[in-house]
Amino acid sequence: MIISMRQNATKAEIDHVCERIQDFGYRVHSIVGEQRVVIGVVGQGDVTACLESLEATPGVESAVRISAPYKFVSKEFRKDRTSIRVGRADIGGDDFVMMAGPCSVENEAQIMATAESVAAAGATILRGGAFKPRTSPYDFQGLEEEGLKLLAKARAATGLAIITEVMSDRDVDLVASYADIMQVGARNMQNFALLKTLGKCGRPVMLKRGMSSTIKELLMSAEYVTAHGNPNVILCERGIRTFETATRNTFDIAAVPVLNELTHLPVVLDPSHATGKRSLVPAVAKASVAIGADGLIVEVHPCPEKAASDGAQSLTLEGFGRMMRDLQPYIRLWKESRISEAALVA
Amino acid sequence: MIISMRQNATKAEIDHVCERIQDFGYRVHSIVGEQRVVIGVVGQGDVTACLESLEATPGVESAVRISAPYKFVSKEFRKDRTSIRVGRADIGGDDFVMMAGPCSVENEAQIMATAESVAAAGATILRGGAFKPRTSPYDFQGLEEEGLKLLAKARAATGLAIITEVMSDRDVDLVASYADIMQVGARNMQNFALLKTLGKCGRPVMLKRGMSSTIKELLMSAEYVTAHGNPNVILCERGIRTFETATRNTFDIAAVPVLNELTHLPVVLDPSHATGKRSLVPAVAKASVAIGADGLIVEVHPCPEKAASDGAQSLTLEGFGRMMRDLQPYIRLWKESRISEAALVA
Amino acid sequence: MIISMRQNATKAEIDHVCERIQDFGYRVHSIVGEQRVVIGVVGQGDVTACLESLEATPGVESAVRISAPYKFVSKEFRKDRTSIRVGRADIGGDDFVMMAGPCSVENEAQIMATAESVAAAGATILRGGAFKPRTSPYDFQGLEEEGLKLLAKARAATGLAIITEVMSDRDVDLVASYADIMQVGARNMQNFALLKTLGKCGRPVMLKRGMSSTIKELLMSAEYVTAHGNPNVILCERGIRTFETATRNTFDIAAVPVLNELTHLPVVLDPSHATGKRSLVPAVAKASVAIGADGLIVEVHPCPEKAASDGAQSLTLEGFGRMMRDLQPYIRLWKESRISEAALVA
Amino acid sequence: MIISMRQNATKAEIDHVCERIQDFGYRVHSIVGEQRVVIGVVGQGDVTACLESLEATPGVESAVRISAPYKFVSKEFRKDRTSIRVGRADIGGDDFVMMAGPCSVENEAQIMATAESVAAAGATILRGGAFKPRTSPYDFQGLEEEGLKLLAKARAATGLAIITEVMSDRDVDLVASYADIMQVGARNMQNFALLKTLGKCGRPVMLKRGMSSTIKELLMSAEYVTAHGNPNVILCERGIRTFETATRNTFDIAAVPVLNELTHLPVVLDPSHATGKRSLVPAVAKASVAIGADGLIVEVHPCPEKAASDGAQSLTLEGFGRMMRDLQPYIRLWKESRISEAALVA
Repeated sequence: MIISMRQNATKAEIDHVCERIQDFGYRVHSIVGEQRVVIGVVGQGDVTACLESLEATPGVESAVRISAPYKFVSKEFRKDRTSIRVGRADIGGDDFVMMAGPCSVENEAQIMATAESVAAAGATILRGGAFKPRTSPYDFQGLEEEGLKLLAKARAATGLAIITEVMSDRDVDLVASYADIMQVGARNMQNFALLKTLGKCGRPVMLKRGMSSTIKELLMSAEYVTAHGNPNVILCERGIRTFETATRNTFDIAAVPVLNELTHLPVVLDPSHATGKRSLVPAVAKASVAIGADGLIVEVHPCPEKAASDGAQSLTLEGFGRMMRDLQPYIRLWKESRISEAALVA
Repeated sequence: MIISMRQNATKAEIDHVCERIQDFGYRVHSIVGEQRVVIGVVGQGDVTACLESLEATPGVESAVRISAPYKFVSKEFRKDRTSIRVGRADIGGDDFVMMAGPCSVENEAQIMATAESVAAAGATILRGGAFKPRTSPYDFQGLEEEGLKLLAKARAATGLAIITEVMSDRDVDLVASYADIMQVGARNMQNFALLKTLGKCGRPVMLKRGMSSTIKELLMSAEYVTAHGNPNVILCERGIRTFETATRNTFDIAAVPVLNELTHLPVVLDPSHATGKRSLVPAVAKASVAIGADGLIVEVHPCPEKAASDGAQSLTLEGFGRMMRDLQPYIRLWKESRISEAALVA
Repeated sequence: MIISMRQNATKAEIDHVCERIQDFGYRVHSIVGEQRVVIGVVGQGDVTACLESLEATPGVESAVRISAPYKFVSKEFRKDRTSIRVGRADIGGDDFVMMAGPCSVENEAQIMATAESVAAAGATILRGGAFKPRTSPYDFQGLEEEGLKLLAKARAATGLAIITEVMSDRDVDLVASYADIMQVGARNMQNFALLKTLGKCGRPVMLKRGMSSTIKELLMSAEYVTAHGNPNVILCERGIRTFETATRNTFDIAAVPVLNELTHLPVVLDPSHATGKRSLVPAVAKASVAIGADGLIVEVHPCPEKAASDGAQSLTLEGFGRMMRDLQPYIRLWKESRISEAALVA
Repeated sequence: MIISMRQNATKAEIDHVCERIQDFGYRVHSIVGEQRVVIGVVGQGDVTACLESLEATPGVESAVRISAPYKFVSKEFRKDRTSIRVGRADIGGDDFVMMAGPCSVENEAQIMATAESVAAAGATILRGGAFKPRTSPYDFQGLEEEGLKLLAKARAATGLAIITEVMSDRDVDLVASYADIMQVGARNMQNFALLKTLGKCGRPVMLKRGMSSTIKELLMSAEYVTAHGNPNVILCERGIRTFETATRNTFDIAAVPVLNELTHLPVVLDPSHATGKRSLVPAVAKASVAIGADGLIVEVHPCPEKAASDGAQSLTLEGFGRMMRDLQPYIRLWKESRISEAALVA
């Protein structure tokens, strides 16, 4: 921690700040500059509590944390990539993972047709919402447990693993009894009651970045899940909210190398929500493979114009097949790059 | 709804769109322009479903909703202001309402001292968090039920009503058994499971605007609570997230007249979270009264530098008293303005 | 400056950083923490050059400036408010200043009618664009020198001072030969060629904050003008660009107390561009007076629906008169507050 | 244009709006819905003037433009890609174009060493700033004409074409006498005086997207240059400003397929400014090739820690060479994709 005192801070204020720092069990290291005093805080203690206290103390201009506020999810805690095996997929491992399926599970015919088609095209995980977060109370809210049962049926028929969203800590047990991966939506990234419960759910968790959440906050939410007992967390960038309206969100693709520097957790990208528009998905998907993400999650529907939600950003079955073919050379380069990375580490 | 076709849309595409519109029970009204066809959709039906379907239909450039997506919270539904009586306060009524108290309830001495002091200065509602949403799993998470009991004790001693945050649908009954107003934090504004449960909680709800939520989305979340049975919703603007870092958030004060045009619900402003800095709170509070908000919610602590959270933005007891005195002439103007408004309506 | 080294920085890297710091003429003050080395940089030198160099040096995690990057505009440089006398107005002084007029000067009848009406209502400065920055090359670009002449005519008739925009360093002399205050538009806030030329123009400059400019960047742009010789700079907050579309921009009213802590320059607010909507202007104007701004700049047009630009946000002549009457009690409170501030300083 | 009337609009207001529309030479097409009247505006006329007028007319809720506000830069105006030949490069053509060089031209040794090295690695265009837009008046402002001369010398020695920034309409002739491509920086994207002058400069122009400019505004600025006579415009995405601070800007890579749908102009990406951090550049560059951009502009410096500006985001000469090698397989896929696109068109 580095504490900058105001230019006009009095000696009494500076002394009081030093005492407060020592109250928290830290050592003080003052630097008397030309214009102001800066105080380095050294040692171990409750960083946040000390920081917040000092920010509120008279004479302090700013108090800045130096160390990362997360631990288990950091590269310092674990050097090699976390890989999470789910069904045939190894997320964070040596295969680029494709998750695909409709926004909402609507009926048996829809989910079975989609599952068979995306499996044939090379997906290994089926997405589909049974509990749907909708901005309006009047919109389709999902089939709930009935939807989970249909997903399980599609898994039995195709061998695809299942990822589906859980919206409340109350539903965690129910959803975990059907799903292979528990998805936390962007709107719930800081639903801390839900995150704590997911720490004990016994299933991998995919955490979508909040619409206005920083990368650091995404890592802090992942830390909630790991600190409560569950190390199997997948991070998902799905676009952030900005002033630009040409796309549904602004896809922060540079988050991938940033996250790869900070954490060992796998990173999956969602070009469907990032762009909101079917025609943009294939190009964005190519870039996502090239930048070194661990996988993609893509919305696919047998008849997008009849979808209960998100039709505009859903690929058709045929469009998904075409995209998968077009991605193959990029996926080959991705594998080569993972292999040379592994060789470098070894 | 207005559907703009692409410039190069074929006749077959246009005909198909018209059929889809009629499938949803609407009438079609085409306008053939110089460059493209625009289709007006007239009648009554499931607007969102129709809109989403058309957005996903080939040949469509854009589909735009004309009517507001909310109903119960709109000015069209109810012309006169909703006022909500809680203890001595009448939120949305003829008194400017002051809610004040610490970020977190920490112990009996702290909450009792604060309650007595803010009541003496003119507050009628006591704020204080028992369940705390914290970015880090390692930070103080609140006293939970113990905190609620201390709030009830402060209420008994001072006559102040209690507002406190609820973070999970699982805790709604517990919190409702102590609180006079249920607060939904910015991070949970779109926690739809929580909003639905609050529709049946029997207590007024104060809904804080999400950090990156539009005013329309805030109203949609309020519509969730009302549509599920609870008309007593208070809206709270507490700053939105932007690129500016000089303040903790960017205080969107113009949301007040915007909301007053769109909704009959009361609007409370939070200058503490909006600015994040104690020294900025009094000036922002003056502006908040002047612009015609229904009340303020302000963080106050007997010793901010020892606060368990948000000390930097908390006023001292004495600072709060001084601010209340300085606000008086503005509150007098506020009352005159409410009285002439009422005279105008009558 | 505070330099944080990476956790795994080598001794050689740390030594090299220390040498680099000394190359720039500074002294080094190292703090060896539990996890990393932090280096304080003490003394005087070229801060930015040193900072940028260190950010690019191997082993460095971050390099943070402690001192403010501006000098002449800072509160440290000058404690008391800068006031700028223009015609009957004293901007930053003991009168709340009202600038009003049309977005564009369109013709003699329009500008004369507006000038007489706003003068009668209490404005002391006439705004009106002769050079117009328009997003589209096909929109009305302003009357140019003809517009400046009409402004001068309106000044002669009413005694109002003139504020008008200059868009290019090439036009500075021309505009300065007519205008009393040179306005720099939001899109040109970082047009450094223009700012340098305005440093020598001999007229006060009003600098509008860029749509995505931080408060610190606004102050740096003001520093450009002052460092090039012109201390008479007025800052103008006119809304920043965010995700919210209910208003044209998001009005960052808290910038006023922030700026009052950092600078001695006057601050004027523009509720017209901030909101983009006529009906919102009066409420926002009240808040602007209450928060302690030095003045307002407001768009007014005899017939907004026939305005060549910005009609939707222009008040009618009558609407402006009504707003001025409604502001009077707030302006009285503003004056009392200035007087007690002056008494406090004296 | 589509005009929505307010729900409570009177018949007189609706009639007045229809008259206004006809005044502008358009035909009226009314749709009487359940809740309100919507008016379609058909025909040809001055869209913006009519739109702005209607927005300001009583009874109007909103006025929305349907047609694109730009013409020459649109896909409707020209179906096939614009390609711009500069030296050995064909921007927008069949070769992926690499522009590289230092942020600022500092001295002969620096620019010559960089030019030779990037040419050897495969760049065909040399970047380097002689006029530098700097946030602080106290930072290095560029060598000006001396810098241009050094760039010309580097061109003579290496055959690289030159791209360099012009900051004022006053400098256009001077810069055009040395540069092959005139660069407009992000801060000047809406410096309309500069854009108009560049319409007549006789050199291709590269227009960087403003930090908070929408894609539509970028196209409107390109329209300025083309409408004033210069069709050779290159668009450059370099990151937009958001709340995220982990990167210098947020790289809006999805702008590439969006622009490819809207315009025939070439699109170049700038991973250096987008990320602000050397270690992130190579991964972002791979994604940029994969998504189908026409080229990259990258900062490279012989000794980043001694750079006069932007050292932290500059690659070393060796790092640039390594990146170029790693990009080769992606560039091969890029070429295949251009060839099949051409075959499809033919």
